Amino acid sequence: MKRTKIKDVFKQTETDVKILVKGWVRTRRGNKSVNFIALNDGSTVNNIQIVVDLEHFSEELLKPITTGACIAVEGKLVASQGKGQTVEIQAEKIEVYGSADPETYPLQKKGHSLEFLREIAHLRPRTNTFGAIYRVRHNMAMAIHTFFHQKGFVYVHTPIITASDCEGAGQMFQVTTLNLYDLKKDENGSIDYSRDFFGKQASLTVSGQLEGELAALALGDIYTFGPTFRAENSNTPRHLSEFWMIEPEMAFYEIADNMDLAEEFIKFCIKWALENCADDLAFLQEHFDKELTERLQFVLDNDFKRLTYTEGVEILEAAVAKGHKFEFPVSWGTDLQSEHERYLVEQHFKRPVILTDYPKEIKSFYMKQNDDGKTVRAMDVLFPKIGEIIGGSQREEDFEKLKNRAQEMAVPQKDIWWYLDTRRFGTAPHSGFGLGFERLLLFVTGMANIRDVIPFPRTPNTADF
Amino acid sequence: MKRTKIKDVFKQTETDVKILVKGWVRTRRGNKSVNFIALNDGSTVNNIQIVVDLEHFSEELLKPITTGACIAVEGKLVASQGKGQTVEIQAEKIEVYGSADPETYPLQKKGHSLEFLREIAHLRPRTNTFGAIYRVRHNMAMAIHTFFHQKGFVYVHTPIITASDCEGAGQMFQVTTLNLYDLKKDENGSIDYSRDFFGKQASLTVSGQLEGELAALALGDIYTFGPTFRAENSNTPRHLSEFWMIEPEMAFYEIADNMDLAEEFIKFCIKWALENCADDLAFLQEHFDKELTERLQFVLDNDFKRLTYTEGVEILEAAVAKGHKFEFPVSWGTDLQSEHERYLVEQHFKRPVILTDYPKEIKSFYMKQNDDGKTVRAMDVLFPKIGEIIGGSQREEDFEKLKNRAQEMAVPQKDIWWYLDTRRFGTAPHSGFGLGFERLLLFVTGMANIRDVIPFPRTPNTADF
Repeated sequence: MKRTKIKDVFKQTETDVKILVKGWVRTRRGNKSVNFIALNDGSTVNNIQIVVDLEHFSEELLKPITTGACIAVEGKLVASQGKGQTVEIQAEKIEVYGSADPETYPLQKKGHSLEFLREIAHLRPRTNTFGAIYRVRHNMAMAIHTFFHQKGFVYVHTPIITASDCEGAGQMFQVTTLNLYDLKKDENGSIDYSRDFFGKQASLTVSGQLEGELAALALGDIYTFGPTFRAENSNTPRHLSEFWMIEPEMAFYEIADNMDLAEEFIKFCIKWALENCADDLAFLQEHFDKELTERLQFVLDNDFKRLTYTEGVEILEAAVAKGHKFEFPVSWGTDLQSEHERYLVEQHFKRPVILTDYPKEIKSFYMKQNDDGKTVRAMDVLFPKIGEIIGGSQREEDFEKLKNRAQEMAVPQKDIWWYLDTRRFGTAPHSGFGLGFERLLLFVTGMANIRDVIPFPRTPNTADF
Repeated sequence: MKRTKIKDVFKQTETDVKILVKGWVRTRRGNKSVNFIALNDGSTVNNIQIVVDLEHFSEELLKPITTGACIAVEGKLVASQGKGQTVEIQAEKIEVYGSADPETYPLQKKGHSLEFLREIAHLRPRTNTFGAIYRVRHNMAMAIHTFFHQKGFVYVHTPIITASDCEGAGQMFQVTTLNLYDLKKDENGSIDYSRDFFGKQASLTVSGQLEGELAALALGDIYTFGPTFRAENSNTPRHLSEFWMIEPEMAFYEIADNMDLAEEFIKFCIKWALENCADDLAFLQEHFDKELTERLQFVLDNDFKRLTYTEGVEILEAAVAKGHKFEFPVSWGTDLQSEHERYLVEQHFKRPVILTDYPKEIKSFYMKQNDDGKTVRAMDVLFPKIGEIIGGSQREEDFEKLKNRAQEMAVPQKDIWWYLDTRRFGTAPHSGFGLGFERLLLFVTGMANIRDVIPFPRTPNTADF
């Protein structure tokens, strides 16, 4: 007999039929004549209720069926009298695949703190919370690939190991096969990296953007979706040392096209979540964030407000003048803090905001310079609750301007000759942006700590499992 | 006016309409009265022909329009008289975005060797060959996500940085933030990794399988698709130091289910390529592999032959007895070489082959042990031209057997306590397999060198761009 996934059991319209389900026991309760097993197989947050008539099953068989045990149940699917469920299964045959000793199994019925569950990240997918989060995570990845594929974008795998550090997005992890107990040095006392695996010093990438631009200036529209790394010693609920990024890059896009795409993209993802993850979102809303679906719907229903950084700062300064207190000072030229971004979104405009044309001093060398000589054609998408969710820009396509700005910002030309080549040969206007996948997941799941939206978080002093 | 991608120009049925295209010049040729520009924008391997009436354009404007230049062309789409094309564009307005000095631009009209193009991997996406390969690569990634999504699998991001080395698949790259000029040692003279970023020694993953199993034994059906690493000093056309792997893992699958899934999966991908990449495959067939689509169709049309390793070795020994010469010896207990695998596929069965039940000595500790005490429930899928394309197994679900086998194979228990926990608590029969993404691409594109199917290959002494 073929197994039916529990998600499909709930979709089945015909009852009084034989059915085979397999999964893990969430709870078992009952009285002297009948037991009820709540069974979950990971396909949905909802459990199927198994009704066990004790007349037909031995105590010996049932004994190992405790929370966490894995079983197969053959039985009859019937309409359920219980509230909160439409169907249940009357067990006819039960097979126990694996028990879970109640004395040692860490996931008993009672609720566990998210902190405790992080310590047993190898078992936490077995909880309702993490089952829901990982299914949403899967769906967001699928939404992203679907969105770009439908638009004719090419998915490009940019390299993870890199010998250049020119994006300057943060501190890097070194990658080496040198024997650290026997490091050879040259006459100047420098480590001889010609003996290292790649013949030079190598690191883990902080961004695939520059390589993405190489591809966009040949294939047109491309996107990356891969892991990126930061070696900063940041122990915060918003930072990971290893996280996934999506970086689309489009030839012939100017800044307005870039904003249109970013807004369409993120709304597509959120709509996908609402349509495909309703059960999981309802669970997360009930347990973690009462305003979750309201907030998601709010983003869908509103055009993003577009204004310049300069206009944004004026609004913030006016708020300060009227007595609003920010923790950090704000004036033209400063990088905005999350509190400033959220003020614009939540209190002033009451909808998502896209800020453009930032001071060039606080942005990267590759952003297109405006004619005012002071600002660059950057854009940040700001969201309620989390602040910046997307950062991007039109790229500088002019060879001389790009080269000079790189020099001003001390990016060594020998590290970016290949990047400059794209402006030397057949340059084109182009734009792109980056989205931290886990930031998107924080927004879509309503979770507060970024370590809870990636299966095995890597942070300072933590690389377990 | 909105730009039309060249791929969509060829789909347009209406002619004598205004149109705007943008792209890179492949060639420009002509006579005193008319010029023909072959324009490509990366959306398709096919160029659109731009007809330039020299009466309407100045020499000065046309001068920079050489191979590699980037231009925008507004004009009228008309039926073409030329052979090999249905439509062309009569230019009315041309804008030059970027020139490409013929003296220095490396990609001139003439064909270039693949070796040369590897040295300019930042520009090679601008060639027909690499445009085709990268579009096929995108499509295979999309096929993979679509296949698993439709079946209700959850995409799981397993960690890239790991502190354990228990999969044993190969040599690893070390990841560190220690200052190599000032390594602190403890009283035993060992490097003090408590000062390193993760508080212990860390490396780049060689496989996401073990973490994938954790997820499968909670969520049911999962798959990984991410980068993996090998620090072997292998300079061959089949090895990369950084490559992408797909590793599905399924609760409640036994070995036969695993074989069914692997066969269905790979046929789905190949069918997707034939249906969605016809132009690119035709180009690759013409220039690199005359039998390409025939070989792809051959895999689609044939059931994979399933037999045991023992039966396979008997066939190979019989072949040797009849005079067939292999470079490497073959007898029960030896690992099969590519030449043996290809003999079974290409000469004996004349179709793809799945070998099962390998000697336990040549396979990993986590594979399910057969009752004979000698073999494990492994499976390898063997393909024409490339040999092994998929390797997998049913996993050992019995806690004691797994623990003992790990011990016999010297896998330290302290490194795999979390993995063993899945067998201690609610264990279940389960299976999985791994597919090297670039191996699949070698097969689907017909290319011979694995460095040509990944955008920026990492190999010993090479980490450019």
